[in-house]
Formats: sequence, C-alpha cells, structure tokens
Amino acid sequence: HVDAARINATLQASCAWGNTSDGGMNRLTCNKDDKNVRDWFIAETKKYGCHHRIDEMGNIFAIRPGQNNNLAPIGLGSHLDTQPTGGKYDGILGVVCGMEVLQVLHTNNITTYAPVAVVDWTNEEGARFPPAMLCSGVWGGEFTVKYAQGRQDPEGNTLGGELKRIGYMGTTPCSFEANPLLAHFEVHIEQGPILDVAEKSVGIVRGVQSMRWYNIGIEGREAHTGTTPMDRRSDALLGAAKMIVETNRIVTETDVAPRGGRATIAVINSLPQSINTIAGHVSLGLDIRAPADSDVELIERRCREAFETICQQHGLEMTFDNFWISPALNFDPIMVSCVKQSVADLGCDMEIVSGAGHDSVYTSRKVPTAMIFVRCKDGVSHHPSEYSREEDCAAGAEALLGAYLRYDDY
Amino acid sequence: HVDAARINATLQASCAWGNTSDGGMNRLTCNKDDKNVRDWFIAETKKYGCHHRIDEMGNIFAIRPGQNNNLAPIGLGSHLDTQPTGGKYDGILGVVCGMEVLQVLHTNNITTYAPVAVVDWTNEEGARFPPAMLCSGVWGGEFTVKYAQGRQDPEGNTLGGELKRIGYMGTTPCSFEANPLLAHFEVHIEQGPILDVAEKSVGIVRGVQSMRWYNIGIEGREAHTGTTPMDRRSDALLGAAKMIVETNRIVTETDVAPRGGRATIAVINSLPQSINTIAGHVSLGLDIRAPADSDVELIERRCREAFETICQQHGLEMTFDNFWISPALNFDPIMVSCVKQSVADLGCDMEIVSGAGHDSVYTSRKVPTAMIFVRCKDGVSHHPSEYSREEDCAAGAEALLGAYLRYDDY
Ligand SMILES: NC(=O)NCCC(=O)O
Ligand SMILES: NC(=O)NCCC(=O)O
Repeated sequence: HVDAARINATLQASCAWGNTSDGGMNRLTCNKDDKNVRDWFIAETKKYGCHHRIDEMGNIFAIRPGQNNNLAPIGLGSHLDTQPTGGKYDGILGVVCGMEVLQVLHTNNITTYAPVAVVDWTNEEGARFPPAMLCSGVWGGEFTVKYAQGRQDPEGNTLGGELKRIGYMGTTPCSFEANPLLAHFEVHIEQGPILDVAEKSVGIVRGVQSMRWYNIGIEGREAHTGTTPMDRRSDALLGAAKMIVETNRIVTETDVAPRGGRATIAVINSLPQSINTIAGHVSLGLDIRAPADSDVELIERRCREAFETICQQHGLEMTFDNFWISPALNFDPIMVSCVKQSVADLGCDMEIVSGAGHDSVYTSRKVPTAMIFVRCKDGVSHHPSEYSREEDCAAGAEALLGAYLRYDDY
Repeated sequence: HVDAARINATLQASCAWGNTSDGGMNRLTCNKDDKNVRDWFIAETKKYGCHHRIDEMGNIFAIRPGQNNNLAPIGLGSHLDTQPTGGKYDGILGVVCGMEVLQVLHTNNITTYAPVAVVDWTNEEGARFPPAMLCSGVWGGEFTVKYAQGRQDPEGNTLGGELKRIGYMGTTPCSFEANPLLAHFEVHIEQGPILDVAEKSVGIVRGVQSMRWYNIGIEGREAHTGTTPMDRRSDALLGAAKMIVETNRIVTETDVAPRGGRATIAVINSLPQSINTIAGHVSLGLDIRAPADSDVELIERRCREAFETICQQHGLEMTFDNFWISPALNFDPIMVSCVKQSVADLGCDMEIVSGAGHDSVYTSRKVPTAMIFVRCKDGVSHHPSEYSREEDCAAGAEALLGAYLRYDDY
C-alpha cells in the first residue's frame, strides 16, 4: 500500500520551487524553478533505483528496471510545470503518485515484470509555450521536434533555447518509436466539480473532451480619442470586446449550452496602449471545448461568423488562426478496466470525461493509456487555492499502484 | 511674413529623432529621441538670439529679449513629445511656428515690446506618463511638482527619474509665479475634420471641451477554461468586454450622442495571460469627453452604474478611479480677438471648440491664452498618416505672427 503522509511530504517537497505567497504555484516551463524541480526529481528517483533518459524536448524518464528489460517500460507520467496562477496539485500530483509507486516497489523489494518509468512531460500547461501537452505531443507524433522547439513565449524566447539554457535539452530522440513505453497511466486532479459533488475520492477517466485553440488578430486604425467622431472610428478594442461578449453568448444562450459547450477568451493584448489613442491592433486567444467534436466545430463556425460581422460593422480586418486541434477521445478499454478494478477496491465507480487536456491525450495515440482522477475542492483549478485532501491524494496513488500492477501482470 | 519652405524645413529637421518606418513618429516623453530633439531645439533657438530656462519639469523656455525685459515674456508654446503611433504635426507644428516667429523677428532685426519665449512643454500627450498636459499643468498650478515628478510609466519609471536621466530636470521652479509669462499663444493642428471639410487653412479656437480620465480595475477569479462550468465563473475579461461595449453604447445610443459626447477605452491589460486560465485581473483606461461638463458627468454616472451592474452579474469587484478632470473652458476674449483679426487677414473666420486638450488649457488658468488651429487631412491625428499641407502650416505660423505682434502692441 501507499503511504499518505509520505505522498504529502513528497508533494510539499516538490513545491519548494515556484511557490507564491498566496499558497499557489508559478512554475512556468523552463524557468529557474522548473530547472530546480527537475534536478530534484532526478535526485529523488535515483534513490529508488532509477536511471534516467532526457529527450530532446526535455521530457524526463526515470526508469526502474524489471525482470524483462528488453520490454519498454510502463509509463506513469504527468507534469511538473504549472500555470502562472497555478496550484500545487495540477500535474504535480501525477508525478508524485508515480514516485510513490516507485517507493512502494523499492521498499518492498519488488521487481516488476516490465520496467517502469515515471515521466515528467515538459510544458503540459501550454501557459508559456502554447499549445498545451506540447512535448507529450511530440513523443506521440502530433508535433515535430522542430515545431515544438521553435514555439515562442510572449518575449520571443523559444522552448528549444530555454531547454538548452536550463540544461534540459537531452539527446534521446523524442518519439514513441525511439524511446517507447508499453503503456501510460496518469493520475490527475479532476479540475472540475463532479467527484467533489459526489463525495468520491477518485474516478475513472473514460476519455477527454474535444478542444481547439485560436489566435485572433484584429486590425483597426489608431486615432485621437478626443477629436475622432464616434461614427468615424475603426476601434480594434471595441471590436474585440464585442467578440468576447458574443463568444460567451454563443456557449451560454444557444443549443450548444446544454451539450456542455465552453468557450473562453482569456488572453488579450492591445496596441498602442495609450489612453488617448484608439486601439489599432488587438490580439486574442480563444479556447473552445465540448464533449463532441461536432459542437466544437459548430461553436467555431458561429464565433467566426459573428466576428466577421463585427469586423464589417466597425471597419476592422481579422486573422483567425486555429493553431491547435485536440479531438475528443476514449481511453484504452483494457487499461480502463485495470483502473476500474483498482478504483472499485476503494469503493468508487464514477466515470468522467475530462474537461481538460492531459499528456495522456497524446500517449493514447500510440500506446494503451488510461487516467485516474482525484477529487479537488470545489472543482477549482488554475488558481492558487486549488486543493486536494491528503487522503484523496493517497487514494489516487493507491488506485494507480493497483491499476499499474494489474497491467504489469497482464 | 513667414516663409513656408523654411517652416517645412524646420519641421522636417525636428522630426529627425523618433520617426518610424510608416512615416509617423514615436517620441515618448524622455526617451532618447526626446532628449535629442530638446538639444536641437536649444541649439537652433540660440541662433536667433535666445537664452534658455529649463524648469524642474523639463519645460524649456527659449527667451528672446524685448525692449522691456522687466516684463515677463509672451509665450508661444506647444510640445515636442508624441504618441507611440503619432504623426509629425501634433505639438511639433506649434513649437516650429514659434521658432518661425523668432526667425522672422531675428532676420528683420525687430525688437519687440515684451520679450518672447518659445516653450516646449514636457509630456503634453500623457501617453507615457498620464495625465496629459502634465507639465504645463504644474506650471499652471493644477498639479504639484511632487505629483508630476512621481508619475510612472507602465514599467514603473518615474517622470522625475527620467528627466534626470536625460539631463532635463532644470533648476527653474515650475510655476507661473516664479517663471511667469505675460500670455500664451499656441498653434496646433485641429486633429478633427471641421477645417478640412470647410476647406479652410486655419481656425480660431474658442475653447476646449470637457474631459476626464479614469483607471478601472476589475477583479474576478482565475479558473480552468476547460473544466469550469460557464455559470460558475467570475471572468474579469468578460466583464471588461461588457464594459467596453456598454461605454460605446452610452455615447452612441443615448441623448448625449447628439450633444457630442465621446467615450473610449483604449488601454486594456489582463492577467495572468494564459490561454487556459480565465482572466482574474483586468485594468482599463477610460477617456470621456463632451462640450459640456454636465454631459461628461452624465456619461461618467451612466458608465459607473452600468459597470456596477456588470460586476454584480459576474461576481466581480471593481475600482473606479477618476484621476484627471479637465473642465470645459473658453479662452481669453482679448487674445481671441487678436487671433480673429490675424486669421481674418488670411480669409478665415471659423471658430472651433477643441476636442483635444492642449498646454493652453493650463496656461489659460493663469494668463491670457488663445489658440490657432491648422487644418489636417481628414481630421486624422494620433496616427502615422497625420498630415497638414505646407501652405496650411505656413498659414498657422502667419496667423500666430500676426496675433502675437498685435498682442505685443496691445
Ligand atoms: N490539465 C491541464 O490543466 N492541462 C492544460 C491543458 C488544458 O488546457 O486543458
Ligand atoms: N493635442 C493632443 O492630442 N493632446 C493630448 C491630450 C488629449 O488627449 O487631448
């Protein structure tokens, strides 16, 4: 069995870098804190008999040998990067649960059938280098190394450059073929309210909903705020504001609402940032999700049409770039049944479709994959107050141990 | 008489620093280009027999002695700073017209009754250090030196620190009492369409409309864009967008519209700038104007009420800070009559109320003040394509020469 206090101690230790005064985390990919927690992860997992592979996207594989080391390891992965206003559980708990499995095996002197690899996937959040799940995506064949290494933060730093700078651009090719896994399990906090409302510690993740990300550029015309008549303006910020309001209306007031459609504009930048010059350029980041791919497409089409109408009304030009598509998916039935049995041992049987993306989305493209969700308080995530109780975290680790050992037997 | 080609040459020379590839200007207060153009202004005006006073807000007074040097000089002022997406005429033309008057006096060996001072007022635009007309405002008693020197740009640099850094924090007290003027004339491009539509080169400025600026802070709650149900959000950016749309509606669809009310939100900043985290903090810059103070107050009240309703609907907190009030004003009748006579000599008689603020707003608090407007193409300003024809610029300088000499006689 796993040890709840030890899991909590490991989790707290892993949050020594990047914690903020409000109790949350700000550990953006490849910042100093991300380097430090990577160093810590390698040092800790060495203690339980692991050797390490670091690939060219900075993904770290802490590998504990099994009886059959000609087999690829079974992966237990998640991520150690966070949102700028993140908590201590999103991603971190998954890596910590993998580390707990290693400790249980190590303490009990168990040699598993296949080797096991605890994986820290780089830049899962996509907060600094969009899109999300970028480096599990390279491993799973969705993105090329070149594309991913070239992704830029708002200051123009590339992910490749930043990986080099912190010493984490490894030499192992980032690919499921060159550096395979047999399967991939992931524990993650639910980040939504379902388990919390049902008062269940853990849940079975059936699949992940559909999601797409967009960059929208709006070009108007700078002009004097005091002298330019209201009917002679091409105000890019007014146009952007109408787009934000319209996006919200589409997912709250049309038929996609009861089917769980969601759309959010959370990033805006406006130029020239002068209080008496009408904004001439605005950029927006749009996130659309729904359980069904067809609803994401419908929301996209409605947003696009509404945005075009707004542009016509206000004399604006628009660029509309859908730079990320992650279709809805179901996890592997055998893997899911391992999770189900293990979760049933803890008295839980709730099945959930994930609202968030996870590294398991991309591992599932190439190897059998499944996930376990852990209840989090009020369903809050991407906020400093994100919280899961010690016993729920332990239930997640216990469910992982059980599911993983079942699959190793299988 | 003034010399059109010489005026144009001076204007082009003054735009050697801070010009942008699109034909416009980006000469924010106290940047390197602002320092260089100040050096140039002092060197040039020395050639026409001026000595200089630089005050503690960096305002530069280029003073040419008259017959009665116990009198304060008559000021001919405007500004050399620009918007980030500015043109070559806003402010610059006014200083250049003053320099042309100096050249006419110098070339013709004229000694005027009172001394004359061409003034470069610091930070008129308010683009880097809001509010606008900050340093003529200190001179005119509206702001304290401490307040103005402490104003910060978005990076947190203070105006005082920046003036020191470029060597333009002078020792002359910034005050109409310690460093008086007898009167203040200002040539400025109209920045609106009235003269252009009427096909008149120059106009008489009767006064300036009412204006107020506001900083608005909106606090919501960060949360995951993918997992947070639409009805459980406190989305600060959605709230901000509704405020922008509502502000526009108030001045385009209510009774203030036909009375010339204008309101604009041109500055927005949002945190935490992550595409999958709902925005938790947004700040806005709001600019309200109208010919009548009562309409500015009415628009303010309507905006504030609408914003409060939006906050209630979305579970947001708001701060609403009115940091600048510039009431409507009429210029001095005697000064205006000097402008009228001089403008009449050029076949023009159009009277205009300025939609923009000018340094003359604050000089008019303490000394007789009047302004001359110069036609600009399509009324466009605060845009790189801002343009006034050489002959219209010359008409502005000629009108200034005539009005100023009339007042000097008077
Ligand atoms: N789990 C998580 O928050 N991942 C980030 C990707 C997403 O936005 O869903
Ligand atoms: N003339 C001018 O653009 N001044 C800036 C102050 C204002 O916004 O009106």
